[in-house]
Amino acid sequence: MSKLIECIPNFSTSKEQDPAVFEQLVEVAKNAPGCTLFDVQSDGSHNRCVFTLIGSPEGIEEVAFQLAKKAAELIDMNKHQGQHPRMGATDVIPFVPQTKDVTLEECIELSKRVAERIWNELQIPSFLYEDSATRPERKNLAKCRKGQFEGMPEKLLQEEWAPDYGERKIHPTAGITAIGARMPLVAFNINLDTDNVEIANKIAKAIRGSSGGFKYCKGIGIFLEDRGIAQVSMNMVNYEGTPLYYTYEMVRALAAGYGVNIIGTEIVGLTPAKAMIDCAEYYLKVENFNCHEQILEYHLIDMM
Amino acid sequence: MSKLIECIPNFSTSKEQDPAVFEQLVEVAKNAPGCTLFDVQSDGSHNRCVFTLIGSPEGIEEVAFQLAKKAAELIDMNKHQGQHPRMGATDVIPFVPQTKDVTLEECIELSKRVAERIWNELQIPSFLYEDSATRPERKNLAKCRKGQFEGMPEKLLQEEWAPDYGERKIHPTAGITAIGARMPLVAFNINLDTDNVEIANKIAKAIRGSSGGFKYCKGIGIFLEDRGIAQVSMNMVNYEGTPLYYTYEMVRALAAGYGVNIIGTEIVGLTPAKAMIDCAEYYLKVENFNCHEQILEYHLIDMM
Repeated sequence: MSKLIECIPNFSTSKEQDPAVFEQLVEVAKNAPGCTLFDVQSDGSHNRCVFTLIGSPEGIEEVAFQLAKKAAELIDMNKHQGQHPRMGATDVIPFVPQTKDVTLEECIELSKRVAERIWNELQIPSFLYEDSATRPERKNLAKCRKGQFEGMPEKLLQEEWAPDYGERKIHPTAGITAIGARMPLVAFNINLDTDNVEIANKIAKAIRGSSGGFKYCKGIGIFLEDRGIAQVSMNMVNYEGTPLYYTYEMVRALAAGYGVNIIGTEIVGLTPAKAMIDCAEYYLKVENFNCHEQILEYHLIDMM
Repeated sequence: MSKLIECIPNFSTSKEQDPAVFEQLVEVAKNAPGCTLFDVQSDGSHNRCVFTLIGSPEGIEEVAFQLAKKAAELIDMNKHQGQHPRMGATDVIPFVPQTKDVTLEECIELSKRVAERIWNELQIPSFLYEDSATRPERKNLAKCRKGQFEGMPEKLLQEEWAPDYGERKIHPTAGITAIGARMPLVAFNINLDTDNVEIANKIAKAIRGSSGGFKYCKGIGIFLEDRGIAQVSMNMVNYEGTPLYYTYEMVRALAAGYGVNIIGTEIVGLTPAKAMIDCAEYYLKVENFNCHEQILEYHLIDMM
C-alpha cells in the first residue's frame, strides 16, 4: 500500500523565456527521491510553467520545498513579465490527495508544514488557500493574488491580508506564494444544441454552488465559436461531494425547460477513475458497489 | 511503464483437506520474483484452491511453471476427492492481460510456452482452452474437462481429443491441465421486479451470444430465493467487445415488453475500471474521451 499525493507547483518562468532557469527546476523535480515528475507545461507568453509531481507524502513535502528554494535562487520577480497573474517566483503550490488512504486533512497539514519551512528557511511568506485557507476569502486563489507581485507590499499591510506564514512584507525577489490543499478537480463541460449563450449562462448560474446550486460545482456559460453552440463549462472541485451525474441530470432538466438538449459533453484533461465509476454505478443501478474493493486497478496501485 | 498479467491457477488440493500441500504451494507463489500473490481461495468440499497472481510477463510465466511443478510433486490425483469437476493436480491455468500495453495475443503466446515447458520438463499434457484454443470446442473449459481425471485416459484416445501439448496419455499422478488466455471477466447481474424466473430466462436467452445475442455475453435466468425476485445473471467475457451498458439497455428494453422493470444490478467481485468508465462515457455522452490518457490511475500504474 503506498500513499500518493500530487503536487502541481506553478513557477514564474518558462522554457521559452529562460531555458537555463527552467532546466534547473526540471532537474530538481526529476531527481527528487520518492517522486515522479509526471508532466511539465510551459507557456512563453504567460512566462510561467507548471510541474505535476506524484509521490509519497515525504517525497512530495521535500520536493515542494526544494523547488521553492531553487526558484527563489534563480527567479527575480522584479524582472518578470508575463500575461498570467502572479505574485511569486513559486506562485502557487497545491497538494492533492491521489490514493484512497490519503485524506484532504493530511494534505492540509502538509501544506502548513511546507509553508512554515519556506518562511523559516527562505524568508518567503505565504497565503494558505483552497482547503487550507484560514479565512473564507483566501480559499479563492484569484483573491489572494489580486494586486500581483507589484501590489503585494501594500496589500500585506491591510488589516485582513497578513500572510499566514511570515511577516507583512514580501521576499524582495521571490515575492509571496499561495500554498494549499484541494481535492482533484475535474473539468466537465456540457454542450447544448443552441447558439444562445444566455441559456448556458442561466443554467450555469442555477447549478453552481456560488449562486445556490451544487456546492462543489463552479460553472459559466460560454459560446464555442468553432461549433456555433453554447456550453455549460464547469469545474467540479469535489467529485465525491458533487458527482458529475448530478450536474449532467440537472443541466438536462434545466435545458429541457428551454426546449434545448444536451448534444454531448467533454472531460478536459485528467480525471480520477472514481469520478467516472460513480456515474456508471448510478446509471447502471449497481447495488452495494464498493469501488475501492471491486475495481482491479486500485489493487494494482496498492501493490506499488 | 510496467506490463502486468494476471494468472489464476486452480489446484486440486485445499487448505482444509491437506494444509501441508496447500502451504507449500502458497510458499512458491509468495516467493516468486516479479509477482504478487493477490488472493488465495480454498474450498474444502471442492478440495480445490485458486490463487490470483499479478506480475510481469516473465514473472508470471515462471511462477505458472513452478506452481505446476510443485503441484505435480505433491498432489496425487488418484487420491483426490472433491465436488468440483477436475482433471489435473494443476487443473486450470488462465492468463489475463491486466494493463493496456499487454495484448490478449501476448497472453496466448505465453500460455503456449508454459504448456510446452510443462510437457517437456514435467511430462504433463495439456489442452489449450479459451482464446488459446486450437479448435472451437476447446474454448469451453467444461468440454475440455468432461470425463474428469478418471475418464481422461480413454478420452485422450478419441480422434478429436489429442492434447495440444504432449502425448495421448495423462501424467499418472498429475493428470492433464487446461491452459489458456482470456480477457478479464466481469460478473454482472440484473435484478427484475418480478418473481417470474421464466421472464429472466427468456431475456437471458435473447441477450447471450450462444443463442444470437451479444457475442461476449453469457447469461442465465435465476430466482433469488432470499429476495423473491428473478435475475438475469451474466458473465461478460469481453467488456470491450460487449460493454456492460449494451446488456443493461437491452435487458431494460426486453423487460419492458413484459411490463417488468430493472430494480438494480450487481457486480460480483473485481472489475477492471474501464468496464465501468466506458458506461459513464456512454451515459454522460462524453465526446472524444481517451480513457487511457485521461484517467489518472492508468498513469499511476504506468509509473510502477
